[in-house]
Amino acid sequence: MKDQGDIHAMMQDIGRRARAAAADLAYAPAEAKARALDAAADAVWARRGEIVAANAKDLDYGRDKGLSAAMMDRLMLDEARIQGICGGLRAVAGFPDPVGQVMAEWDRPSGLHIKRVRTPLGVVGVIYESRPNVTADAGALCLKAGNAVILRGGSESFHSSGAIHACLVEGLGAAGLPADAIQLVPTRDRAAVSSLLTMTEHVDVIVPRGGKGLVGLVQREARVPVFAHLEGIVHVYVDKAADPDKTRAVVLNSKTRRPGICGAAECLLIHREARELGQQVIDELIAAGIEMRVGPGLTGSVEAQEDDWGREFLDTVMAAKLVDDIDAAIAHIRRYSSQHTEAILTEDDAAAARFFERLDSAILMRNASTQFADGGEFGMGAEIGIATGKMHARGPVGAEQLTSFKYVVEGDGTIRP
Amino acid sequence: MKDQGDIHAMMQDIGRRARAAAADLAYAPAEAKARALDAAADAVWARRGEIVAANAKDLDYGRDKGLSAAMMDRLMLDEARIQGICGGLRAVAGFPDPVGQVMAEWDRPSGLHIKRVRTPLGVVGVIYESRPNVTADAGALCLKAGNAVILRGGSESFHSSGAIHACLVEGLGAAGLPADAIQLVPTRDRAAVSSLLTMTEHVDVIVPRGGKGLVGLVQREARVPVFAHLEGIVHVYVDKAADPDKTRAVVLNSKTRRPGICGAAECLLIHREARELGQQVIDELIAAGIEMRVGPGLTGSVEAQEDDWGREFLDTVMAAKLVDDIDAAIAHIRRYSSQHTEAILTEDDAAAARFFERLDSAILMRNASTQFADGGEFGMGAEIGIATGKMHARGPVGAEQLTSFKYVVEGDGTIRP
Repeated sequence: MKDQGDIHAMMQDIGRRARAAAADLAYAPAEAKARALDAAADAVWARRGEIVAANAKDLDYGRDKGLSAAMMDRLMLDEARIQGICGGLRAVAGFPDPVGQVMAEWDRPSGLHIKRVRTPLGVVGVIYESRPNVTADAGALCLKAGNAVILRGGSESFHSSGAIHACLVEGLGAAGLPADAIQLVPTRDRAAVSSLLTMTEHVDVIVPRGGKGLVGLVQREARVPVFAHLEGIVHVYVDKAADPDKTRAVVLNSKTRRPGICGAAECLLIHREARELGQQVIDELIAAGIEMRVGPGLTGSVEAQEDDWGREFLDTVMAAKLVDDIDAAIAHIRRYSSQHTEAILTEDDAAAARFFERLDSAILMRNASTQFADGGEFGMGAEIGIATGKMHARGPVGAEQLTSFKYVVEGDGTIRP
Repeated sequence: MKDQGDIHAMMQDIGRRARAAAADLAYAPAEAKARALDAAADAVWARRGEIVAANAKDLDYGRDKGLSAAMMDRLMLDEARIQGICGGLRAVAGFPDPVGQVMAEWDRPSGLHIKRVRTPLGVVGVIYESRPNVTADAGALCLKAGNAVILRGGSESFHSSGAIHACLVEGLGAAGLPADAIQLVPTRDRAAVSSLLTMTEHVDVIVPRGGKGLVGLVQREARVPVFAHLEGIVHVYVDKAADPDKTRAVVLNSKTRRPGICGAAECLLIHREARELGQQVIDELIAAGIEMRVGPGLTGSVEAQEDDWGREFLDTVMAAKLVDDIDAAIAHIRRYSSQHTEAILTEDDAAAARFFERLDSAILMRNASTQFADGGEFGMGAEIGIATGKMHARGPVGAEQLTSFKYVVEGDGTIRP
């Protein structure tokens, strides 16, 4: 293992190369970027044997480290998952290219014609954990948006990510794009993350994808701007004007479809006057295998404790509570939410309007499952994560959210009086 | 003077109150915000005597501190300037309210209807230097966008800013909005700035307006996201296909209209084949009182030194240089520009396209004066500054750029398969 000075110098070099690649990528033709992604998909499929072999090394490492079954599952790559990676790359290749899009244009009385044109952000640093497919997804989205990317995968997926990264580089080469457009940090050393988080001259934005530990580290150490990705402490509120059938369907789906994703509901708030409906829903959730931790006035699996509010279970566990009215629900959500996604069940337009107006989460839903909180479901094609901050990107972060813009102004010898 | 612990506690309190005000402001009616700004304008005009008296104290302080004539001029308020402040407040009052605007909406095959709705950012910290009118401009723009704002003015304008701030608070009161929506840091102590830059729980974004010293401090200390505002190292490139009349008019205007603003041109690049035209322009600039610091092959006032490239003179001084071709101009600009504004003079569409595509400054112009780099001239009404970074806001930062957005999703009992 190298010492920290060496790691820092290595990261500086990676940063400089990313910056240089970004300058070229900024005006790379849309077709070249699409071709690179298609060629990368071809390479991933052709080299699936190598990828599975690399993954086997990671699985051995994970077993030695005593990873949980869930983490081992996230880490594992088989032919079907590799096919999924190829499909993802081809899907991104097929998206419209965001760079150069005219977002708005207008004329001014001075005679100027002004256009606001989409541009790449520059260099994106992506720090992620165990899922090796993020290497392909994040690399592809950043490239699509004309950005150079520095990928830092989890130490568990080190070999798998390396094998997938080699295919991305092969794709770049096939399209005549610079290999440095997609770089993978070639060490497990944590010092590399600290360098990445502070290289303000070489990195324009950091996208962290991972659990509390990673997010905390990023918040403490980052000097580079960050697209905040907190956990999904998702609330569903059953209003007194909720429709019973919609409520039962939506709450069940919000929790049970996939309890481990960030859009899964974690806390059910029930208007006191909808207690009966709420209790029915709780009974159905319990019947579906969910452990319900409930507050006073409700019957559940166990009594809720104070620390069950504002908790991301990511599991077959859910908290539930009666509230006096919609404002009490709003107050609870304001206090405990991570501003990811919240939903209201109601037939009352005024209640929905109040919920939408007074809450400020990235995604607010009415009579719809919170499991729709996903870039694909929003029509963005793919996403690099769900941003919970308010700066630049918010909600699902797709290729478009990885861009900036510039103003292009045309005159005809126009001067300012 | 209080000690640093006291200052920090005071700033924490200001931050908490700003956060609480922001929660209410987020859904304040557009009319209330407009009324508050109109009432603030009335108050500024009614209390112009007090404001001038407060300003006199600042001018005394400035004289004691030995401020330059230019700085004393920036600091000075008279009746005409106070009228300008009132006009600015009324203009912002009259703008369309950005909050709640539907930026996009679409339907999904799932049955969901998705809207992207403009929301306030939250709490904005504005750190500025000598011009006391920024108190009104920044306060007004932040309020218009539904944000609470913490203003930290320069120590030179302490009393003037305080008097103007009192009028803003009067306006808030007249409209029934929380007084904490616009707070002014009530101390000259530098420790307050350090607190403001690090209160990530209470402040969402920092907008610095000032010179290199302030920008450097912000870059070093800020933990809160920043809308970068670097200097305006503005380049004008005279292409070989430049029209002589347009070139003379535009270059003269870009430099001489107001040499001290951030959109003033600082460096003239001349295609070798346009040397004759370039030399004419240089002669005219010298005749207009500009000191021209020129590179080899040109005749100017003095020879340019290495440190004249990439320098913001903000004065009647300009650098000029011959370049071999458009790519050499682009390379020079990439190396020395602050990514604020650059212009090309050319009749060749391909050259303009290359310039627009290969440079990444916030504003790129063709055959137009760089002095148009201004929110008012762009049709944004007013601005809090010209952002040179690429995150969130870029170019002139008006009310719209001080907003974020959220997704509002409507279903009808819609669940995800």
